[in-house]
Formats: sequence, C-alpha cells, structure tokens
Amino acid sequence: MQALWLENQQLQLRQDLPIPNIPDGEARVKVLQAGICNTDLELLRGYYPYRGVLGHEFVGVVETGPKEWQGKRVVGEINAVCGQCEDCLNGLGNHCQFRTVLGIVNRDGAFADYLTLPIKNLYIVPDSVSTDAATFTEPIAAALEIQQQLKITDRHKVLVVGDGKLGQLVAQTLALTGCELWAIGRHPEKLALLAKRGIKTGFSEDVPERYFDIAVECTGNPSGFETARRGLRPRGILVLKSTYANRLSLDVSSLVVDEITLMGSRCGPFDQALAVLANQQIEVESLIQARYSLSDALQAFEQAQTKGTLKVLLEMS
Amino acid sequence: MQALWLENQQLQLRQDLPIPNIPDGEARVKVLQAGICNTDLELLRGYYPYRGVLGHEFVGVVETGPKEWQGKRVVGEINAVCGQCEDCLNGLGNHCQFRTVLGIVNRDGAFADYLTLPIKNLYIVPDSVSTDAATFTEPIAAALEIQQQLKITDRHKVLVVGDGKLGQLVAQTLALTGCELWAIGRHPEKLALLAKRGIKTGFSEDVPERYFDIAVECTGNPSGFETARRGLRPRGILVLKSTYANRLSLDVSSLVVDEITLMGSRCGPFDQALAVLANQQIEVESLIQARYSLSDALQAFEQAQTKGTLKVLLEMS
Repeated sequence: MQALWLENQQLQLRQDLPIPNIPDGEARVKVLQAGICNTDLELLRGYYPYRGVLGHEFVGVVETGPKEWQGKRVVGEINAVCGQCEDCLNGLGNHCQFRTVLGIVNRDGAFADYLTLPIKNLYIVPDSVSTDAATFTEPIAAALEIQQQLKITDRHKVLVVGDGKLGQLVAQTLALTGCELWAIGRHPEKLALLAKRGIKTGFSEDVPERYFDIAVECTGNPSGFETARRGLRPRGILVLKSTYANRLSLDVSSLVVDEITLMGSRCGPFDQALAVLANQQIEVESLIQARYSLSDALQAFEQAQTKGTLKVLLEMS
Repeated sequence: MQALWLENQQLQLRQDLPIPNIPDGEARVKVLQAGICNTDLELLRGYYPYRGVLGHEFVGVVETGPKEWQGKRVVGEINAVCGQCEDCLNGLGNHCQFRTVLGIVNRDGAFADYLTLPIKNLYIVPDSVSTDAATFTEPIAAALEIQQQLKITDRHKVLVVGDGKLGQLVAQTLALTGCELWAIGRHPEKLALLAKRGIKTGFSEDVPERYFDIAVECTGNPSGFETARRGLRPRGILVLKSTYANRLSLDVSSLVVDEITLMGSRCGPFDQALAVLANQQIEVESLIQARYSLSDALQAFEQAQTKGTLKVLLEMS
C-alpha cells in the first residue's frame, strides 16, 4: 500500500508497505481522509524520535473487523493502551506507559491506505457529520480536554493565545461555555473567522494585563507563552495545549509570587467531539485550507509547514 | 536604631536609622526576634532589587498602637495591601498590585529594633507559644498555603523534595493531612529530624517514578525540580514553593504529554499557623541552628549562607 513514512526526520512516500495484519482485538480501517496536525510537523522537527507511518487525525471505513463494525465510517482514539497497568486501572488510560500512539509512538499512522486500531478505540461517525467535519474529531477532542480538566462557566474570563488550527478549535469549544472569551493571534484573516462567530479578537498588544482567570497557550512558541502569562490574574491558570520542540525557559519565581498554575493538556473525549459536530456547535469547513491526494503528500507537507497555514487534508484514493 | 540594610546586593549594619514613624492604621512593633529565610538570601543574590531593611519573619511586642494592642506579643502578615483594588476586593489581597511587603518590597523589614505594620496584619501570639516557636509562624503559614490550594487527604501520595528549612515545615504540615508522605533530601541529619516524626525519608535516587499525586519542590534548584517531576504520576501536581534567582528551563512538551500541573504557592494563613503551633502539631525547636544578636547580623548571614544550614535567628536587645 501507499503511505507517508517518517524516519530520521525525513519524509518518504512509500509504495512498498504491506497492508497491515490485524492484531487481536483490532480492526483494519481503510482511510478516507486525514489531517496534518502541528504534532506531525513537530515530529518532523525531531520533537520525538518516531519512525513509521505518520498521521493520527483520520476518518476511515472499517474494512475488516467484527460484523457489526464492517463498512462503518469511523474515527479513532489515538492512544492504544494496555488496560492492565496502574494508570489504566486508575482511569488514566491515555497516560498508559505501555501505550502505542497512532502515528506518534510505535504504531503506524493514518497517512496510508490502511491502518489498524483496537476496536475499543473506534467511534462511529453519525451520518449527519460529513467526512470533512469528522476529520477534525481528534483535535476537537483535544480542545475539549480543557473542559475535562477545568470547570469553565460564564463567570470566567478566558484568553486563547494562537489563531492557528488548534487555537481556532480551542476558542470555538470554549465559546460554548459562555465564558468571557478573547482570542489573540497574529493573522487578521484567521482572527476574522473567530470574530464572525462572535468571539472577541485582538493582537498580543491588546491583551489586558492580570485580567484573565484562564489563559490557553496554543502557539507552541515562547512569545505566545509570555502573552498568556501576562494576561493572567494572580492565581490564574495557564493551560499548555501545544507541544514544543525545544525546552522553554521560565521565570519560576514569578509563578510562585503570583501563585500561577500551569496545566498541561493533551488528548480528549472523542464522544463529546462527535456530539458537538453532530449538533453543529462547531464550524470547521472554513479551517480547511488545502486538499491533496496521498500521492502528493510531500507537497501537502510543504504547504502545511508554511507559516500561517490552516488545515491541510490528505485524501486517500 | 540599629538595622540590617540591603542595598545593591550588599548588606550593611546601620546604627543611623530613625525609629520609624507610624503611618495611619499601623502600629509600631519592637522586634524581639527574627529568622533568616531563603528569600532573604535570594534578595541578597539579586532575585528582586530591594533596598531597605531586610527581614520578614519576626516576633515583636506592640510598642505604639491602639490601646488593646499595647504590649501584646505579635507576629505579622507580611503583605500590606491597599484593600481597594480588584485583587483585594476579590479576596486575593496577598496579590494586591499596590502592596508593600515587609523586608521584600518597598517596606522596611524586621532585622531592626522596630518595624511598623498595618494593625490588621498583626496576630497576637498565644501565651502557650514560645517566642522561638512563633518566629516560625510566617514560614509555617507559607507551608500551609499548599493545603489552601489543594485538598490533601489520606488518599494522596505526596512527595516533598528538599530537607532544608522550608522542606522541613512543608513535610511536617503535610504529615497532618494523613497522606502517604515521602521527604527527599541530601542531608542524612536533616532527614533524620523528619524520620523521627514518622515521615518516610530518602535520597533523590530512592524516588519511585510516576508514583506521587503531588510533589512539592522546596529546593529552588533545577535538580530538585527534576526529582519532583520524575516522581509524579501523569496528571500529577507539582507545587513550586521556592523562588529561584534564575530562570528555569523546562521540558514543556513532557508537561503537556503527561498533563502535569505546576502550581506556584506563596504566603499562607497566619491564624492556622499559630493554631498548629499552639496545638503542638509542629515541632520547630530542632530547626534552630544558631542565634546571633542583631549587632552580629553580618556573621549570622555568613552562617545562613553556608550550604545545609537550618534556621538562623537574630535576637534584638
């Protein structure tokens, strides 16, 4: 089959990979469409030494699996966990030390004609949700994870820093809470997408100091972190949604003096993500910037790596 | 009067300072005894550009103030706040932007014959609490602040990193919660003080990985931070109690992937600190390493700066 392979921080479009065998408890999924995520770009830059088929945001159709799953259009939770370690038994399966992660850790990913995942990881896409929309399930789930970690209500003032792919979804999902929401970015045309949905937008210099209860950092760069930090009131919470290829240098004393909380936030609930899509509470079509066929995946990555690009999709034939 | 003055990161024992005038709403306190804190040492190293009389841990006697306070033995909350800004009105007075802080920000401190503080900052020391013990009120309050921020119970596994002055008080106060507690340090004789109180102790290499729900960093150095980080389970909470003179370089991606929370923690409740002292739930006498008179303050600081020193006290004549 055809697949996009990552090795030694080099991408390679391969035709020679076998269609994957199906491990016990898993299903084989024919991929319909997949999205390029910033984590893919970070992996390419060496954030984690992954070798294999890249890609983890996908929609596919179950090709081989239990009868009731056959032919179903699905998305899939990317962490394949052992189910037996202490983390798993404590309900922290996403943090299982023995997990593989689709297209990220020891498990071939979604930029391929086929992938396999444990059946328990799969979610059927409701008929009312288009394949385009469903391709965003994984990042929407990640955005919703913030609300799993923090109870956010209309009494909260929340700042989102970053108007890129992730920032857009984080802002849209936070808007559902009724909080006082500001989205900060560098790109007028991307901020306009959020403004159109009634979200207050601005540039870094517009951020009022010590104003927000919660700030969500979605840029993955130090200046985004500084903007988020500056906007927080004492005892405020800074949510870290982005992975960073490099270490970040922090003024820890200032965190202590202002009693700031930093909170890492990663993968989230797929069921809730599909629900907000089915209820049309989130708009994702305007985030699609380009579509490529898998055979043009290298070009697709070139575009995805261009600063300011929103979602680039890969379509499998 | 005599006082220990800090200016341009230089200490100076001065005899030429006037006895302070008493601003509206404040009382003048004759200082009996004061403790040297790591924050004093950080200020000397330039953590914050303070100029004035140093010192913020003290016990004194009200010399001039309202009748009912006259002659009372007191300790004092170190943040003198405006009472009118948004932080103050929101119950975050300790974070008032317009605050002065005794011996730290724009307010002459306790290494002097006299100091002044707002009357509302003062707490009467119960007769059953010795002056030695009461000198620890401020750092015990800071240790108890962790329990203001997090509800800790006997279901939690908690790691304290650092066996110094702060680590000792943090460990002793956390032990009161009934949590499973480990204290990690570098000094067998200091760890022995905690072991004597039934607390499990060890060295950095003894810390089980991914085991603790909460880790409290009390060393102020990067290796202490790494030990605390290593001990935490996914979604664990790392409490930062120490100020650092320098910035700290962090692997933020690992915080995101493991969904770790970092929580800055500073000043705490004086009333509760006095209560645990009055109830003899905390033992502080063994933490006193040396006593000097104020006129020997420079020598006292030399000893306090020696690695591994516990509490050094200054006695006013």
